[in-house]
Amino acid sequence: MTERLRFASFSHGGTLKYGLVKADGIVDLSARYGERWPSLREVIEANALSRLGAESAALPVDYALDDIAYEIPIPSPEKIICVGVNFPDRNEEYKDGQALPANPSLFIRFPRSFTGHGQPLIRPPESPQLDYEGEIVIVIGKGGRRIAEADAFGHIAALSLCNEGTIRDWVRHAKFNVTQGKNFDRTGSIGPWLVPFTDEEQLADIKLETRVNGEVRQSDRTSRMIFSFRKIINYISTFTTLVPGDVIVCGTPTGAGARFDPPIWLKPGDVVEVEAEGLGILRNTIADEVF
Amino acid sequence: MTERLRFASFSHGGTLKYGLVKADGIVDLSARYGERWPSLREVIEANALSRLGAESAALPVDYALDDIAYEIPIPSPEKIICVGVNFPDRNEEYKDGQALPANPSLFIRFPRSFTGHGQPLIRPPESPQLDYEGEIVIVIGKGGRRIAEADAFGHIAALSLCNEGTIRDWVRHAKFNVTQGKNFDRTGSIGPWLVPFTDEEQLADIKLETRVNGEVRQSDRTSRMIFSFRKIINYISTFTTLVPGDVIVCGTPTGAGARFDPPIWLKPGDVVEVEAEGLGILRNTIADEVF
Repeated sequence: MTERLRFASFSHGGTLKYGLVKADGIVDLSARYGERWPSLREVIEANALSRLGAESAALPVDYALDDIAYEIPIPSPEKIICVGVNFPDRNEEYKDGQALPANPSLFIRFPRSFTGHGQPLIRPPESPQLDYEGEIVIVIGKGGRRIAEADAFGHIAALSLCNEGTIRDWVRHAKFNVTQGKNFDRTGSIGPWLVPFTDEEQLADIKLETRVNGEVRQSDRTSRMIFSFRKIINYISTFTTLVPGDVIVCGTPTGAGARFDPPIWLKPGDVVEVEAEGLGILRNTIADEVF
Repeated sequence: MTERLRFASFSHGGTLKYGLVKADGIVDLSARYGERWPSLREVIEANALSRLGAESAALPVDYALDDIAYEIPIPSPEKIICVGVNFPDRNEEYKDGQALPANPSLFIRFPRSFTGHGQPLIRPPESPQLDYEGEIVIVIGKGGRRIAEADAFGHIAALSLCNEGTIRDWVRHAKFNVTQGKNFDRTGSIGPWLVPFTDEEQLADIKLETRVNGEVRQSDRTSRMIFSFRKIINYISTFTTLVPGDVIVCGTPTGAGARFDPPIWLKPGDVVEVEAEGLGILRNTIADEVF
């Protein structure tokens, strides 16, 4: 089996770049293609991920991985849409006697609510309730509206991972909507990289696991999702036009810190890892916000 | 009293531009300043609204208003954040026995869920329940995090109007969150223009009214808002860093079509107007989506 291609956005010397991740470092693709495609969003829009992979696979690395900082793979997507309550046990956790929902709950996060792989998630002074949620990310390649379930996989360009970090008490701070608890700056992460999407087998039944300090807290398989990847793309594109580079975060298994009795929140010193088969490991530490 | 400055984004011959709106037409500012500031977002970031107003007030118009199409004033803001349930009677409408909420409910809309002044709001085939919500819009000038209420007005660059059009049944389509009912493409509008913010009196107690086919449906005053403009800016900036050009839609008075018995939805042929003192009239027709 050949090594899977992995594309990352990263910063080096204060400049935002993108490149091909190899075992011993990173090939700087923005130095070679950046005028034409300023970010991975434009690379995806041009359907050029595999071309860049082929053209750069044999190139030597420009930077050691220790010398770069990972950024979220698509720094400025038009949209980041998140699916809530998408594993069966998650619905039961709400103990509201409701049957499985008919349609996916959706909310929106701003890019600045995320940081990259290897960076600390930031615990703000407003709350100690920083919680993890490990999730699969799909990145839209070909845009569209009212995409049929049968066609949905033709619209995915790449995959990634998300720690959809949440300030739990702020999720229910107001009468409706989870917006504020999901949008504290740099409380979540996306990455480490984009893996180009090739076929349904990459997604259909893969294991998704979240660990805190090495202890497994969430573990489930994508085949158990209430709303399939096909359904999610179909449903979201019913109301909004999806465009290349749009990011969809597909929901988390049971086992977030809020579900323990008493709850266990993330704290400085903790290491959280989100892993899925074929996609790598998204690892973050925790830090208190510095003023 | 001198005429208030009004800045609009518009398209002409298929090109997106911005300019100064005068009684007899529009001065094309993007032709003069577009290389330096590609959109009104960058003009605001440079704190240059009043400079552009002063430099261009005496210029002749480049286009008649009949020859342009208004676009939403900030075509690509980093964020559009909407406040739900922000007038007292609106809370009572929910009939859930809850006291006034302690914090504002917030949700997010994508720019593509809006169209400009004079354009039709689009009724999608998925639902006949297209409803209006007239609201005041504030546009952030100076960015910041954890902005004190006392400082909030120093962070507003400009004001506008919003018809925060909603597909009512899709607001409760899922277990949580209003995302989908608030984000059908081009179901709402923002505009017609930006009015530079000069002082608190512009906002403190102005009348906000929504009319359908000339009939008043919503009418209230900003002094009755549950969460003041100061509080909204303070609260939102607690969790996310506000940046220049961010758009905040501040909530609607009682009287949306959903509150009638039976409900009255918008339909093709209707004309909806949102008006507030000093800000103008945002007028839209309704059209069925064309495939």
